Amino acid sequence: MKANLSQLGFRQKPSDITRLIALAFQRPDILSLAAGFTDSESLPVEDVREIVQEISDLETEAKASLQYGSNIGRDTLRSHLTSRIEHGDLASKNAFHPDRLFITNGSQQALYLAVQTLCDPGDCILVEQPTYFVFLEILRGLGVEPIPMPMGVRGDVDVDSLRKVLEKAALDGSIEKIKAVYLVSYFANPSGHSISEEVKQAVGALIMEFNSAIALLEDAAYRELYYEGAHPAKSALSLESFSELPVLYTSTLTKPYASGLKVGYAYCNSDEWRDAMLAVKGQQDFGTSHFTQVIVERALLSGRFDRHLSELRAIYHRKMQTLHRCLASSLLDLGWSWGIPEGGLYLWLRSPNGLPTGSESEFHQACLDSGVFYVPGDLCFVNSAQTDYIRASFGVLNESQLVEAAERFNRAAASVARAMAS
Amino acid sequence: MKANLSQLGFRQKPSDITRLIALAFQRPDILSLAAGFTDSESLPVEDVREIVQEISDLETEAKASLQYGSNIGRDTLRSHLTSRIEHGDLASKNAFHPDRLFITNGSQQALYLAVQTLCDPGDCILVEQPTYFVFLEILRGLGVEPIPMPMGVRGDVDVDSLRKVLEKAALDGSIEKIKAVYLVSYFANPSGHSISEEVKQAVGALIMEFNSAIALLEDAAYRELYYEGAHPAKSALSLESFSELPVLYTSTLTKPYASGLKVGYAYCNSDEWRDAMLAVKGQQDFGTSHFTQVIVERALLSGRFDRHLSELRAIYHRKMQTLHRCLASSLLDLGWSWGIPEGGLYLWLRSPNGLPTGSESEFHQACLDSGVFYVPGDLCFVNSAQTDYIRASFGVLNESQLVEAAERFNRAAASVARAMAS
Repeated sequence: MKANLSQLGFRQKPSDITRLIALAFQRPDILSLAAGFTDSESLPVEDVREIVQEISDLETEAKASLQYGSNIGRDTLRSHLTSRIEHGDLASKNAFHPDRLFITNGSQQALYLAVQTLCDPGDCILVEQPTYFVFLEILRGLGVEPIPMPMGVRGDVDVDSLRKVLEKAALDGSIEKIKAVYLVSYFANPSGHSISEEVKQAVGALIMEFNSAIALLEDAAYRELYYEGAHPAKSALSLESFSELPVLYTSTLTKPYASGLKVGYAYCNSDEWRDAMLAVKGQQDFGTSHFTQVIVERALLSGRFDRHLSELRAIYHRKMQTLHRCLASSLLDLGWSWGIPEGGLYLWLRSPNGLPTGSESEFHQACLDSGVFYVPGDLCFVNSAQTDYIRASFGVLNESQLVEAAERFNRAAASVARAMAS
Repeated sequence: MKANLSQLGFRQKPSDITRLIALAFQRPDILSLAAGFTDSESLPVEDVREIVQEISDLETEAKASLQYGSNIGRDTLRSHLTSRIEHGDLASKNAFHPDRLFITNGSQQALYLAVQTLCDPGDCILVEQPTYFVFLEILRGLGVEPIPMPMGVRGDVDVDSLRKVLEKAALDGSIEKIKAVYLVSYFANPSGHSISEEVKQAVGALIMEFNSAIALLEDAAYRELYYEGAHPAKSALSLESFSELPVLYTSTLTKPYASGLKVGYAYCNSDEWRDAMLAVKGQQDFGTSHFTQVIVERALLSGRFDRHLSELRAIYHRKMQTLHRCLASSLLDLGWSWGIPEGGLYLWLRSPNGLPTGSESEFHQACLDSGVFYVPGDLCFVNSAQTDYIRASFGVLNESQLVEAAERFNRAAASVARAMAS
């Protein structure tokens, strides 16, 4: 049966990560440093059991939780999350308005709605290098072109070089096609990098110079997953240089609590844009599962969420250190390099001498042979512009599995190094 | 802050039902026959409490339920739902393939994905009159034109007249723009009508004559919500005339169980089309909440789902009869008319002598004044072609509320009749 697909339909291809995960499923013997899944052992099973029990004891609340909710999401949850952003930004109480915050199916739906309502096929969005590779898949799916921003050595956007890119685009008129800048601003997937307040301010000021209708998509999915202290930069919502720009700030309750619940949120300072996104959300699902919203709301209000998050921070810190130490013991001598993140779920490894790490590479095959699996870094670059990075997640494996995975990885690296030397 | 929205973004306007619900919220004294919410008193609070308890006792299962799932949805759930379709269609075991079934955020997401992957802006979809009005909102949001199908007196598609429509479209070339036929085939929202197997077969045969790439979207959301017996028509998946046509069959576990869980599903016989929809779903949310999938799966496998559904059928049957009886006592004499549904959540009332019932009408205002609320039927017609219908839902109100709502409705009808007579 052959359907006559739309242009959007024809553009689709299976996502890279789906393909990778399918491959991993065929080989259960493989330890995966690939998927950005969350720590399994610490998942808040008892919290959720208690919460459902408590809700079940409150008849009205219990029934409401199993009934449809509203498209925008629960009022109490939205108020709480709005305060949470204020708190994170050290903003004054009521600096933000709960009406501008809406609940989504993970932060991913917020990103999708934002791109859908901003970009026609052929439009462009400026992205960091590297960037969140599923965002690149969203753009590809919607026919939107990612434009790589020039990056400085410390992993920040190189604002002076970006100015030249925008000047050129202004001259040839292509700036009209640039609809947004996408920043993964805290403990980024994949690089672990956080954007300083100064750089963020400078990006905002630069956009304002050129076109005040270019929106900022700030992806703060990992903001609360710091190890020892929150990153000091305020979100763009609180920065002066963005005060006249449309901003969508999105984050999630799933990675810092329980990814199976799939509740994210977005705050948008442009009412017209928010209304458009909400209308589309109404067409896509008419509201995120009310039951899971009730659960995360109660987890937040009862303090369970923050207690769990504190534990989780320590767990990821320890797991990061374990993976880092085990890899470092062997890889540093072989010329591999990476930074030590202060939050998030990933090490972002660079291979020596440009050794290719893509899914067709000799190194990738050596890792599969050795029984370990990773996300090839080229997926995180526009046009696979860099082929010598690897995203290694310490999210889901436990510490002993991480030790074993690192040993397998080290063996693969050593064998490829030997082969190249000989 | 003004964002530079896409064409899709500019097309959006607040959904009619969102506007209606907001209005109702401002007037808590009003009894609503409007929203298609489900019966509140019978929501399966104890089931869900027990299920979460049981899951929590199984460590591996408990943790898995709070971890990410896959984009396509849980294997066991998909297998079970596939068997359920086979059972409903009296098909042989393994007639259908679980790989062709995927889990969605309610059946609404399935409809959205289907239209996105089939239709470019300007394309067309054939719809019944009346039809599910949120589907018309999806089309409007995606820039797709609904083409009303000619309907016979019994509420079935008039296949002979439809042939003339298609012949004309084939002649002027516009048939290339027709991408699908949308049928709400069991106890339809809003009309309560079910499509006979003969008519469905005839529609399939007619499409095949003209263009075998025109897809069928079969919306079976209310199929299991019959009162006394299942409707005998098989789904298009099992009908000979559709065997060479792309078919998407979608239904939901929310209306027949707990709408707060928001788990729907779709079965698609075209692999290429299914792959495109799954790729887009991966971009929108990368899988429906795993936790709610685990809950409905356990409800299904443990027999709780079907036990609850049996009770629910009796409840809706009784509530339908209550609303019907109370309205009939006064409205029949005034010239109102409607059919008695054999399933679903709605009475579809026709006013006497074409009396307008739209949201700007005198009758609508009289109902608001009297303290009762309904969905104006014109929302369910392309271009509001008919203005003398009302969708009255007996889903959420309990029996005494239904009696009171009917009395208020009857008072409004009587007062408008008096005003017109004088």
